[in-house]
Amino acid sequence: MDRRVVNRARLETFSDGVFAIAITLLVLTITAPNDYADLGADLMNRWPALAAYVVSFVVIGIMWLNHHSLFASFATVDRPLFYLNLAVLISVVLLPYPTGILGEALRRQSGAREAAVFYSALMAVNAYTWAALWLYASAGRRLLTDDYPEDRRRPATVAFTGGTLVYTATIAIAFVNPMACLATHAAVALWYAFDPLTTRSGGG
Amino acid sequence: MDRRVVNRARLETFSDGVFAIAITLLVLTITAPNDYADLGADLMNRWPALAAYVVSFVVIGIMWLNHHSLFASFATVDRPLFYLNLAVLISVVLLPYPTGILGEALRRQSGAREAAVFYSALMAVNAYTWAALWLYASAGRRLLTDDYPEDRRRPATVAFTGGTLVYTATIAIAFVNPMACLATHAAVALWYAFDPLTTRSGGG
Amino acid sequence: MDRRVVNRARLETFSDGVFAIAITLLVLTITAPNDYADLGADLMNRWPALAAYVVSFVVIGIMWLNHHSLFASFATVDRPLFYLNLAVLISVVLLPYPTGILGEALRRQSGAREAAVFYSALMAVNAYTWAALWLYASAGRRLLTDDYPEDRRRPATVAFTGGTLVYTATIAIAFVNPMACLATHAAVALWYAFDPLTTRSGGG
Amino acid sequence: MDRRVVNRARLETFSDGVFAIAITLLVLTITAPNDYADLGADLMNRWPALAAYVVSFVVIGIMWLNHHSLFASFATVDRPLFYLNLAVLISVVLLPYPTGILGEALRRQSGAREAAVFYSALMAVNAYTWAALWLYASAGRRLLTDDYPEDRRRPATVAFTGGTLVYTATIAIAFVNPMACLATHAAVALWYAFDPLTTRSGGG
Repeated sequence: MDRRVVNRARLETFSDGVFAIAITLLVLTITAPNDYADLGADLMNRWPALAAYVVSFVVIGIMWLNHHSLFASFATVDRPLFYLNLAVLISVVLLPYPTGILGEALRRQSGAREAAVFYSALMAVNAYTWAALWLYASAGRRLLTDDYPEDRRRPATVAFTGGTLVYTATIAIAFVNPMACLATHAAVALWYAFDPLTTRSGGG
Repeated sequence: MDRRVVNRARLETFSDGVFAIAITLLVLTITAPNDYADLGADLMNRWPALAAYVVSFVVIGIMWLNHHSLFASFATVDRPLFYLNLAVLISVVLLPYPTGILGEALRRQSGAREAAVFYSALMAVNAYTWAALWLYASAGRRLLTDDYPEDRRRPATVAFTGGTLVYTATIAIAFVNPMACLATHAAVALWYAFDPLTTRSGGG
Repeated sequence: MDRRVVNRARLETFSDGVFAIAITLLVLTITAPNDYADLGADLMNRWPALAAYVVSFVVIGIMWLNHHSLFASFATVDRPLFYLNLAVLISVVLLPYPTGILGEALRRQSGAREAAVFYSALMAVNAYTWAALWLYASAGRRLLTDDYPEDRRRPATVAFTGGTLVYTATIAIAFVNPMACLATHAAVALWYAFDPLTTRSGGG
Repeated sequence: MDRRVVNRARLETFSDGVFAIAITLLVLTITAPNDYADLGADLMNRWPALAAYVVSFVVIGIMWLNHHSLFASFATVDRPLFYLNLAVLISVVLLPYPTGILGEALRRQSGAREAAVFYSALMAVNAYTWAALWLYASAGRRLLTDDYPEDRRRPATVAFTGGTLVYTATIAIAFVNPMACLATHAAVALWYAFDPLTTRSGGG
């Protein structure tokens, strides 16, 4: 056995664990109410935190799905891919932090712009790490399985590099309108949900 | 391989992880004591939080069991099922939040009604997502295994759609008596524990 | 397939996940320092929290090991065993709560007796759930594998029922001396570490 | 089956779970902002917490990778190895605690030296447990697979015992300069990333 090769199954299990925990820790981003005497109103006021929770939940869930599709395309996993995967996970795990801040800032109607910029910047970093991972794995078909269709490589590369531009653009939207920025993140996640990387027909 | 098909084993592992983490995070719903000089009394006063913890623990544990039975009935997992499963998980993961609030409201004897309504509303949303998942998977036997008995489909549909009515009714109970509402949730979970979906005899 | 039978592998994975998360959440039981100007002294004062962390970590780790040995003795897993396992997990997941309180009470030198009683009472409940699980599974060899040696059943039953007495006794020790109580829990865990359930020779 | 033997796959899954959760809980080490009116500046001031987060993330990620390489060298897992592995995990799980304190102390510019000493001391304890685990498993090739190359044992022993010296030395660096200490931890982790234990050629 070449010991520089990483066991793909164990790496997927580890990554699945990290995705599952990060998505579940999102519940901690909604701060506890502090007015039990008027609990209904207090909870109602926290709807931006709930919205941010749902958006980040969908974002991480779809990321998990694409991670799973992507790794099914890899014949082997080597050390560089492990480190690129670790870079992806660093930004995924951090996501609950700006999620909580964005929800709280929208509730307080104070600092929402900075919070949305922070959230978008982290998502952009995340998009760059995904793109780097894909470019490393797909260049010269380095890690791709033999049956990965050649005519799907280019569209996938377009999707990943295009993702970096889209998420960089959300930073600009954050400056204009934090709420529109959050909605954009939801929309982009849903766009990825239709999974252009894996559902596009081979002849497209 | 049809890439629109999701790997069932990995989705189950991911879902198992989310259930396991959500159930474990419930421990964080019991707030720390603040009176160490009279710690015994302080802890005793927190019994509603402990009760809410136990109820939500049993609820999530039984949900995991039914998830496991249900997915054993599926021959394949496709994208729409993945998203319906994600919708189920969004409400499962959120459950610790109203659990903590309900326990705290009962302890403070303030806001318990609103807290029980919130808890029940989330459980109702959860029941609707389960019903949607089942209806999608079972309509025309879309995703069912060949050996899934035809005469068990209707009782399962009755159980899932009935669940939405039951949980919607708990919202009304919450308005009347928060403590009775919590007890109702425990009772319904125990009723599901006898698992009418899977233990009912094929000839029933 | 008898659908009342639970998939043992998935239940083990779920239980492993819960053990892994509960053991890791123990890190949250050590409260943050509040005096950064004299951080060294502040951290030193928190040694009881560190001691409680280590004891609970070893307790849960050894429980995981015994869970793993025990389930290897089971030929099948049925619904009642699932619920008994859930009862075991309820008390395992709760353990970080009294762990944090005990560490904090020892540091404040206030409420340590009540905290140790609470910790011991939870461990006693846990021991009763383990004993119930074993007695259910082993009575009439209900769930045991065919190759499970008959002459090891009685010693295992003695160990499990004896455990309930030992842990009940730690409640009394807690009243006398909280620190000795914590040390007793460490000692009992180490005694279980030598695993009388599985290492005792068949002819003993 | 010798029941003193631990199921390697289940122990790896358990350990993977603990690593995955510990790495994800690192997100909780970055404290929430408290000035939403000037959120941008508040978040900027927290860069040391982000730096500590990234360093600990990389440290745990690479530790996971080496755990995975190491266990692939073991033919069997016995009870003593289980306990040595548990000792490794105790220090891994604790790592978020000094990570959070170090980030906060650097931000406050108060107590950073003590925080860096604490962080480094824990890393040193961790290095000692790794070395003990390796020495136990490799002495007389006790648990090694038959195909583990004999000429790689000595370099591995040098790397593990050298690691204890390196991490002990970081305690001294902490006294001199906390920030340089954090950078040293990052550098050592990256050095381990090149994995001298497994990539060194057999004939070296």
